[in-house]
Amino acid sequence: VLRPDSPFAKAAGAVTAPDAAAHAAAIEHLDRLTKPPGSLGRLEALAARLSAIAGNDPPPLPAPATVAVFAGDHGVVSAGVTPWPSEVTAQMVVNFCAGGAAINAIARQMGAEVVVVDVGVSAELEDAPGLIRRKVRPGTSDISCMAAMSLDEARAALDVGAEVAALLVGGGTRCLLTGDMGIGNTTPSAALIARFTGRSAREVTGRGTGIDDAMLATKVRVVEEALARTAASVATGDTLGALASLGGLEIAALAGYIVGGAAARVPVIADGVIAMAALVVADALCPGVRDHCFAGHRSIEPGAGAALEHLGLQPIIDLELRLGEGTGACLALPILQAAARVLGEMATFDQAGVTHKR
Amino acid sequence: VLRPDSPFAKAAGAVTAPDAAAHAAAIEHLDRLTKPPGSLGRLEALAARLSAIAGNDPPPLPAPATVAVFAGDHGVVSAGVTPWPSEVTAQMVVNFCAGGAAINAIARQMGAEVVVVDVGVSAELEDAPGLIRRKVRPGTSDISCMAAMSLDEARAALDVGAEVAALLVGGGTRCLLTGDMGIGNTTPSAALIARFTGRSAREVTGRGTGIDDAMLATKVRVVEEALARTAASVATGDTLGALASLGGLEIAALAGYIVGGAAARVPVIADGVIAMAALVVADALCPGVRDHCFAGHRSIEPGAGAALEHLGLQPIIDLELRLGEGTGACLALPILQAAARVLGEMATFDQAGVTHKR
Repeated sequence: VLRPDSPFAKAAGAVTAPDAAAHAAAIEHLDRLTKPPGSLGRLEALAARLSAIAGNDPPPLPAPATVAVFAGDHGVVSAGVTPWPSEVTAQMVVNFCAGGAAINAIARQMGAEVVVVDVGVSAELEDAPGLIRRKVRPGTSDISCMAAMSLDEARAALDVGAEVAALLVGGGTRCLLTGDMGIGNTTPSAALIARFTGRSAREVTGRGTGIDDAMLATKVRVVEEALARTAASVATGDTLGALASLGGLEIAALAGYIVGGAAARVPVIADGVIAMAALVVADALCPGVRDHCFAGHRSIEPGAGAALEHLGLQPIIDLELRLGEGTGACLALPILQAAARVLGEMATFDQAGVTHKR
Repeated sequence: VLRPDSPFAKAAGAVTAPDAAAHAAAIEHLDRLTKPPGSLGRLEALAARLSAIAGNDPPPLPAPATVAVFAGDHGVVSAGVTPWPSEVTAQMVVNFCAGGAAINAIARQMGAEVVVVDVGVSAELEDAPGLIRRKVRPGTSDISCMAAMSLDEARAALDVGAEVAALLVGGGTRCLLTGDMGIGNTTPSAALIARFTGRSAREVTGRGTGIDDAMLATKVRVVEEALARTAASVATGDTLGALASLGGLEIAALAGYIVGGAAARVPVIADGVIAMAALVVADALCPGVRDHCFAGHRSIEPGAGAALEHLGLQPIIDLELRLGEGTGACLALPILQAAARVLGEMATFDQAGVTHKR
């Protein structure tokens, strides 16, 4: 189904399992450092996973880091699933490029770069600093009644993501963070998570940016319709078909980006429910790619929890965020960087001349 | 009981309530920023609290930041509450000054400075970079059978903490993080938390750096003995008496440091169970000082949870840490700094020309 010489297929083919020997070396190393064994809790597990991803103990510092905000519009907005008009997607892209959005403020604190990728914004966008123009089509179709995009468009969006990952790693980035912008995009995310985890629409559909009970009922019904249509038209196991049917151009591109990062053995920090949908798709297209990823945070969107459980990932922080843009991934970045420094910079008991416990 | 012209008493007298008007302004400001209202979850509450503490919206960036690691030894180690010998306290101070401990690696990532304050290490320490020598006495007495220190020593340790806070703020620090080192110090922390929260020894006494069931039983019994002795000798409401009885020179100094930070209107990030014990004491000596503090993380030590509940504080991160040194506070620092940047740097809907929801 994927073209073997496409950027996405080549990246997927290059993904290997994390290095079990480096993981074991890190675990053993952690117990020789000047602290009670296990006392750094989950930070130790993060450090060991970084070693496995990089294939080395100590792991390289995951810096510099880049947040790629993939932007796209959604035909399903016309079905009444959000109070925000689609034009806000393009307006927010302008805001990202001007440095005024939440992700810009947070990324500045964390020393991360922000780039924006137009993979499917409805409006024509002008060149702007940090904007990568790779529009596949100007927004998806309304998934409540038809496929979001064609198979070729889904392939093209996957390729955009894989190419952006390669571009950023080629430019020196050593940690990739997922970001997203797309009014309406919690709806296709819920649909994709339901399709790939087997949960019901009701279980995984949430209030997104904050909708009332009536709009939530509409949203659940829309997700149910999209799932029923897809069940009738796409064979079980046809991941690309399900992605094209339930869509999200930015979600498809994020799946490509995640696989691209894993192919380069660079850790990927996934943000909230949009990233979780992309990661579920990515892991279906490229089994095991989840092992190269960290869940930055636990979004309050219910689909995020379902995907985290499906993927077996434990989020680094839980601040009840529901913004997207990569904000939750970026807030977790320094914690992951600190984990790398524990293995890279701490003295052992022998080195420091500290007496071990009796 | 406190001498009115002492550094601690002067700091306590200078602490005022956070600014309710600045808090309200921040809440209103947050809803004009280019994001759905409330979508940054608990980060928004952190931002508003920073405004209240500083008395301004937007709040100043809490940077540069300093972790002060207060170090002291504990006579109760001879009662068999830890497998680590007391000599490790001094060895770890040397490790901190050489930059090889966990707090050093983490603080480097977060851009925080580390200083170490010898307020009660048993061994004589030589001058070292970053070491502030303010020893009140070389370790406490065994609290299982006698008071940890005299009232004058408790006052002196409180003064050391308040003076260190003033010294650091005077040097330009705009965020104070609590750190601690003291083999055996989860035992006095449990005793103090039990005394001030009304919980039983069993509820608040944990495994510290990782002890077995037999040693935990000893530790619970020691805490019970210390509490019974204190109940018989110190009047209810005599905070200084309870502090001197149950002790911890570094805990007393941390209480002074917290009050010193609050007096300077600089936010204080508290670390784990040792900091929680100090904060419970500080808030009893200077009611409301808790409102100037953030709980950096939720330590897995049960006393920390009891103190958090008593204080009404919700921790920023929860990574199952149990190391101390300030590591949990330091991991939370960039999140607090990012919260300040949200108010300080994000564009409003009007400024960015972004359409509000319908």
